[in-house]
Amino acid sequence: MGTIAKTVSVIHGPNLNLIGTREKEIYGTITFEKINDELLQWGEKNNITVKIFQSNSEGSIVDYIHSIRDKHHGIVINAAAYTHTSIAIRDALSAVEIPVIEVHLSNIYKREKFRHLSYIAPVCLGQISGFGHYSYILALDAITRHIDSTHN
Amino acid sequence: MGTIAKTVSVIHGPNLNLIGTREKEIYGTITFEKINDELLQWGEKNNITVKIFQSNSEGSIVDYIHSIRDKHHGIVINAAAYTHTSIAIRDALSAVEIPVIEVHLSNIYKREKFRHLSYIAPVCLGQISGFGHYSYILALDAITRHIDSTHN
Amino acid sequence: MGTIAKTVSVIHGPNLNLIGTREKEIYGTITFEKINDELLQWGEKNNITVKIFQSNSEGSIVDYIHSIRDKHHGIVINAAAYTHTSIAIRDALSAVEIPVIEVHLSNIYKREKFRHLSYIAPVCLGQISGFGHYSYILALDAITRHIDSTHN
Amino acid sequence: MGTIAKTVSVIHGPNLNLIGTREKEIYGTITFEKINDELLQWGEKNNITVKIFQSNSEGSIVDYIHSIRDKHHGIVINAAAYTHTSIAIRDALSAVEIPVIEVHLSNIYKREKFRHLSYIAPVCLGQISGFGHYSYILALDAITRHIDSTHN
Amino acid sequence: MGTIAKTVSVIHGPNLNLIGTREKEIYGTITFEKINDELLQWGEKNNITVKIFQSNSEGSIVDYIHSIRDKHHGIVINAAAYTHTSIAIRDALSAVEIPVIEVHLSNIYKREKFRHLSYIAPVCLGQISGFGHYSYILALDAITRHIDSTHN
Amino acid sequence: MGTIAKTVSVIHGPNLNLIGTREKEIYGTITFEKINDELLQWGEKNNITVKIFQSNSEGSIVDYIHSIRDKHHGIVINAAAYTHTSIAIRDALSAVEIPVIEVHLSNIYKREKFRHLSYIAPVCLGQISGFGHYSYILALDAITRHIDSTHN
Amino acid sequence: MGTIAKTVSVIHGPNLNLIGTREKEIYGTITFEKINDELLQWGEKNNITVKIFQSNSEGSIVDYIHSIRDKHHGIVINAAAYTHTSIAIRDALSAVEIPVIEVHLSNIYKREKFRHLSYIAPVCLGQISGFGHYSYILALDAITRHIDSTHN
Amino acid sequence: MGTIAKTVSVIHGPNLNLIGTREKEIYGTITFEKINDELLQWGEKNNITVKIFQSNSEGSIVDYIHSIRDKHHGIVINAAAYTHTSIAIRDALSAVEIPVIEVHLSNIYKREKFRHLSYIAPVCLGQISGFGHYSYILALDAITRHIDSTHN
Amino acid sequence: MGTIAKTVSVIHGPNLNLIGTREKEIYGTITFEKINDELLQWGEKNNITVKIFQSNSEGSIVDYIHSIRDKHHGIVINAAAYTHTSIAIRDALSAVEIPVIEVHLSNIYKREKFRHLSYIAPVCLGQISGFGHYSYILALDAITRHIDSTHN
Amino acid sequence: MGTIAKTVSVIHGPNLNLIGTREKEIYGTITFEKINDELLQWGEKNNITVKIFQSNSEGSIVDYIHSIRDKHHGIVINAAAYTHTSIAIRDALSAVEIPVIEVHLSNIYKREKFRHLSYIAPVCLGQISGFGHYSYILALDAITRHIDSTHN
Amino acid sequence: MGTIAKTVSVIHGPNLNLIGTREKEIYGTITFEKINDELLQWGEKNNITVKIFQSNSEGSIVDYIHSIRDKHHGIVINAAAYTHTSIAIRDALSAVEIPVIEVHLSNIYKREKFRHLSYIAPVCLGQISGFGHYSYILALDAITRHIDSTHN
Amino acid sequence: MGTIAKTVSVIHGPNLNLIGTREKEIYGTITFEKINDELLQWGEKNNITVKIFQSNSEGSIVDYIHSIRDKHHGIVINAAAYTHTSIAIRDALSAVEIPVIEVHLSNIYKREKFRHLSYIAPVCLGQISGFGHYSYILALDAITRHIDSTHN
Repeated sequence: MGTIAKTVSVIHGPNLNLIGTREKEIYGTITFEKINDELLQWGEKNNITVKIFQSNSEGSIVDYIHSIRDKHHGIVINAAAYTHTSIAIRDALSAVEIPVIEVHLSNIYKREKFRHLSYIAPVCLGQISGFGHYSYILALDAITRHIDSTHN
Repeated sequence: MGTIAKTVSVIHGPNLNLIGTREKEIYGTITFEKINDELLQWGEKNNITVKIFQSNSEGSIVDYIHSIRDKHHGIVINAAAYTHTSIAIRDALSAVEIPVIEVHLSNIYKREKFRHLSYIAPVCLGQISGFGHYSYILALDAITRHIDSTHN
Repeated sequence: MGTIAKTVSVIHGPNLNLIGTREKEIYGTITFEKINDELLQWGEKNNITVKIFQSNSEGSIVDYIHSIRDKHHGIVINAAAYTHTSIAIRDALSAVEIPVIEVHLSNIYKREKFRHLSYIAPVCLGQISGFGHYSYILALDAITRHIDSTHN
Repeated sequence: MGTIAKTVSVIHGPNLNLIGTREKEIYGTITFEKINDELLQWGEKNNITVKIFQSNSEGSIVDYIHSIRDKHHGIVINAAAYTHTSIAIRDALSAVEIPVIEVHLSNIYKREKFRHLSYIAPVCLGQISGFGHYSYILALDAITRHIDSTHN
Repeated sequence: MGTIAKTVSVIHGPNLNLIGTREKEIYGTITFEKINDELLQWGEKNNITVKIFQSNSEGSIVDYIHSIRDKHHGIVINAAAYTHTSIAIRDALSAVEIPVIEVHLSNIYKREKFRHLSYIAPVCLGQISGFGHYSYILALDAITRHIDSTHN
Repeated sequence: MGTIAKTVSVIHGPNLNLIGTREKEIYGTITFEKINDELLQWGEKNNITVKIFQSNSEGSIVDYIHSIRDKHHGIVINAAAYTHTSIAIRDALSAVEIPVIEVHLSNIYKREKFRHLSYIAPVCLGQISGFGHYSYILALDAITRHIDSTHN
Repeated sequence: MGTIAKTVSVIHGPNLNLIGTREKEIYGTITFEKINDELLQWGEKNNITVKIFQSNSEGSIVDYIHSIRDKHHGIVINAAAYTHTSIAIRDALSAVEIPVIEVHLSNIYKREKFRHLSYIAPVCLGQISGFGHYSYILALDAITRHIDSTHN
Repeated sequence: MGTIAKTVSVIHGPNLNLIGTREKEIYGTITFEKINDELLQWGEKNNITVKIFQSNSEGSIVDYIHSIRDKHHGIVINAAAYTHTSIAIRDALSAVEIPVIEVHLSNIYKREKFRHLSYIAPVCLGQISGFGHYSYILALDAITRHIDSTHN
Repeated sequence: MGTIAKTVSVIHGPNLNLIGTREKEIYGTITFEKINDELLQWGEKNNITVKIFQSNSEGSIVDYIHSIRDKHHGIVINAAAYTHTSIAIRDALSAVEIPVIEVHLSNIYKREKFRHLSYIAPVCLGQISGFGHYSYILALDAITRHIDSTHN
Repeated sequence: MGTIAKTVSVIHGPNLNLIGTREKEIYGTITFEKINDELLQWGEKNNITVKIFQSNSEGSIVDYIHSIRDKHHGIVINAAAYTHTSIAIRDALSAVEIPVIEVHLSNIYKREKFRHLSYIAPVCLGQISGFGHYSYILALDAITRHIDSTHN
Repeated sequence: MGTIAKTVSVIHGPNLNLIGTREKEIYGTITFEKINDELLQWGEKNNITVKIFQSNSEGSIVDYIHSIRDKHHGIVINAAAYTHTSIAIRDALSAVEIPVIEVHLSNIYKREKFRHLSYIAPVCLGQISGFGHYSYILALDAITRHIDSTHN
Repeated sequence: MGTIAKTVSVIHGPNLNLIGTREKEIYGTITFEKINDELLQWGEKNNITVKIFQSNSEGSIVDYIHSIRDKHHGIVINAAAYTHTSIAIRDALSAVEIPVIEVHLSNIYKREKFRHLSYIAPVCLGQISGFGHYSYILALDAITRHIDSTHN
């Protein structure tokens, strides 16, 4: 099994742009910019192009997902609040047929009951939650491995 | 009962712009553009102005509905994923007081349980689901008949 | 795509024989006989044989559905109250493997909660509700189109 | 306890731009513009800067809430339909750590069951519903008092 | 308030034909024939024509209800098992617009949970349950009084 | 079967003292005093001592029920709002072992869902609801008959 | 333990008359006539009179059950769709006091959720499901054994 | 719009007599007596007679509500625990037809789930919760405004 | 760990005054007076002042609890029916901050489902149920031990 | 269709080792040893090797199921209490891909609600319940027939 | 009432062996060994043989319960986590017909919702929860008293 | 941040010993032995001692978890079926206070509803599901990082 040139989108949902500056006891102290830097660096080191996208708007996230179909090889998505309410994002992920991994900073199963339901999980390869921003790194690792294993 | 000059909006919700190119076993092979062409032609043949609107954003759909009040005579809406999650679109339809018909390409009652609930249905004249893009044609037929019957 | 000689059953469930004479604010003023006449005329005009059947008995409706298998090409059914309680009719429709469309005079999603569940919907092509007796016409239109499209 | 210079945002959710022109039996006859005028006047009279924001888009409301953090001292929000469906707005309110009061024009507990649930209420100081546009005035009164009491 | 010539139907649902010969600890020892005799006698004594109808078939009960519309002045119905499962009988009672009283031999609220729901109750004047066959006598008394009060 | 000297309590629950003066469309125009007079007269005519008790307090109703044990032969109770919330009254009725009949002025099955549950029904002989104050007369009739049948 | 002359009814519910000709992947390829032949032969070989009854009507099944009371010694019933919706058949079985065994061709616990509930099971000796038409043979075996064991 | 002479009852439910001396982190440190003083003063300043009533007994609260009908012009009620359990108080408020506003010291939507349901809310003009004793002041303001607006 | 002078209230809820004279198969044959005698004797023997209170009224129980705050050191409460319906008693227990133990004569988990929920349990130290009147003795033992352990 | 040499495991779950010595009104008087003897004899007579296994431990049952894969041709399992709680046994049965039949001594649908759910049923061929130890014999009969039919 | 020689088993479920060394804020600081010592001493002082058993395995607990039947006179069981998940232990307790008392260290009604359900409670004499290890002492006291009262 | 000598347990729950030999479409073709080899190799490469444990018994898993407390620095657990049913394992993990990560081979949110609930998740750092045996590698990576970050 060899490797191909890969582009992976990291999609951040609503309010994630604020992490590191607020509610640090839940989300940690590392800032949004810092996290994205780490993800880009990880990409460089592992020979995969990482594209960052953040929006507070459900519709924009759907638009973005449409825009990368047939272009990107994988998606790592932290849909944040939309995880629990957006069937539109689920349908978008499902429609573009790009492999997706769902991530969460916090362990959503320790939080309010309404955060235990994910509309997105059933259309993903898998789910990683609870490791702070390292959830994204683990997901990048897993998606890379998945892409390689399915392009040979 | 005679007929008046009529304008009807066809509103397509999230991800519908992709139909015909993806998940063809569910939505058929006819493309979004092709469907809209058929709707426009149907309008011409039946002497009714058909306006097409599509958006992946809940807010934009609400805005659009507001923009046509007191201007259009009927709405045919396939709110797609927002059917099941958007009270805002329901309230918008309710507020503008234009007669509405809800349509779906697939038979939503054959699909996941969460697609069986429609927030929109109770503020519509009726619902048509399961006939592929022909659901829209049937709805145009029905809305035309309704408008004529209430303007005499 | 051409057309074949087609026979379609229109099945009316319990209490529908009374429409037009009672509860006119819900069901309209057009009588049962009048509706059937319109359906027959529509059939003639569209070159399809329409057969009308009405019964207040769940068992008789099941019997009737059995009697037309391998004979009719489509079914338009308004199961009325049995929509929400009859698994037997569902199983009959499923067993005879004739394409079916479910119709309702009123928009069942505006009525009591127990009328929102349809046992029949999942075994139908689609559902049309809320257009008074015109729901039947739309369904005849759709079933005709469906039969033609699958016999070529 | 003295008073400080205060800025308070009044956030109107979807469809509220239409009030006064539609469904007057529910929302009253006073227009959206007129309500905002009253709020601004109340602000002037009570020495507090009132900023008005309205959007039909969930994402734009989240963006707006982000934009005022560390700038405004209080929020009065009528999230309308998003009250019942938006975890994103809840999370945004929670993240910016500005005191918030939830308001509703109508008594939401007299309306459909799905309007009884508020995702926003648990992250607010309190909730005021049922007094038409006067709900906003009461909320401005309460938020002013709250800000003063916590800045001394 | 005077009195008019009145005809009242007593409708017995499924299995009631067996009472008095089986499960006497629940339904008492008086036979079905004996009960009907008492009801007829009560009618004679109180100057009201009592008509007895029993069927084990939901459809036949619907048919019977249709057959007496515009002819009878009141209905006393013990729908037995169909009380809890038949929307068709409810709709029939609702359609013919004859005043109805629901009766039960046993106190249904002491029995299995599924017997606590009555589809029929909401379309009746009232409900009487738990007095053995005397429930019918009380209902005849009440329906007579109701008819007299509404025909003056 | 002969008859014995009988005393029966009629217990009215909260707010029933106001009937006839308020919400007449639900409860009718006959006043509380007038109803009690009718019940007393019925008692006299039928040779049974009727005792009237009304209280707005759950505890007082429990106290009253205790006070009549071993003294009265039957109870007719309209527990009104406490029907749906009081296990204490249920337990009191159960403890004193006097035969009880539950009555309601209105048909509780036509009203709000929370009025469909009766904690009291399972410890009663039966339930009569929907006949205005005549529900009490029917209950007196039934309880009299019951007492006579069990004292011979 | 000896044996007595025994008659056992096999009751087939709605749509079972079609088995073997449709949906063979669920119900197998052996026809209804063939199954009944096997049951009759089994009866002959085991010295028990087997009577076959099939109906698509709930009411007719109730009627039939009534007709055999005090005549037959056991019932094997596959109520099919009515298993899940008919309290009337349950009550009939309960009323006639003949030992009953419930059977199903398919394993109902592998199918739709609504097929997991049986109104009939609690009034039966036992339930056998999942063995195609051999479920009937097993039930005949069990009912025979039961009758013998209770007539000695 | 002028003003009339107004009397408004403030009704405090169970355990509220203890506030200010216990569980101060929830209810604040201001005592019950002090709160009532403030309400009376507000009344004087605003030219409205405020009457204070507190009871730990559901029945006494019902009695009190009855006692003020046709005498007081408005009610501000904090039913405390009875908010969630008392249909009797709801019915009393509904019966006397005096405008009512429901208040709560704490934000009930931040507390246990069983405190989210209010039986009283649907019969009130509106609800104000979460502002400590200032909730009462806001309610007095709102009820005054309401009374004035409806007596002109 | 030494001991202090202790006063403990035993609070009996509704209908408990009748125990020993009714429904003896559930509650035993020992009378209410006899139970209280035993509790008082136990107190004397163990050097703790036991105060007995019984009421059928929820409000009076709340009043009583208020009256002993800052006076008694412990509460043993059998709230009987109010266990399952009274948030007011829960809040009173919570407000006075006296340690409480909940007791029941019978094992409530063997009885009706609605008796399985206790509003009171979460504000108690613990719960003892099922040992007849000996549940009180065990609770007195436990509360004494608790008081001693927390006053040293 | 011929027959092959067959080995079938009969697996008894927790507490079944006690049958015949306790709770005889539910499980009958025949002892565990006696039942196993009958099963072994049935095996001998029908030319099939029957292996008996009983354990009170979920894990041991899983281990046993693993130990027979690729060795036995069928399983008859009465998982007793684990029927309703063990997903591990379900998964084991599913993993070893040996045909399984679920049996129960008693009719589980006549017992507590929590015994109506079987985690095991959906991975079995079928279910037989209610015939005492004869349920096992019927299951052996059915599994034998199934093995023969699938090995030809 | 005299006393007999008595043996009582104290059964500790999973993880209880760790108490006193972990999560001391919930379970206290007294160790498992120390608790057992106290129980044994209590036994000696009160003339009853106490046997201690602990296991983390559901099956071993069932085995142990079987092993003591007809030997021990009572059981005190803290099934810990298995309280909420084990029907097997419930059935074992039920089968051996030894009187049982359920205990818990903590007040389970203050903890997670899933700890509120006990499968075991309905087959016990009673339940004692919330008094730390003293719950066991109270239970030993109660079981001793129960055994004595039933052996005379 | 440096690194310490680390030991991490990998715990495999029931039926996982069979992976790679059965149901390969769900769990992949790599065998249990092969997976463990990879985990051990990963450990060696990353300087962490990996210990493998597998059991089909809930009790043994609890025992094992106890045995490693104060010895191992982290746990990676795939509790398989016990994920959804074992509170005992949850409590064990909670008691030993070793950081834990929950893993699953398959995406449990794509499977049966009962596999969506994890009793274990709320006591873990995080959850990783859906990546086949690579879920374990990701978890080892994450736990290593966590241990290092908390030992500095």
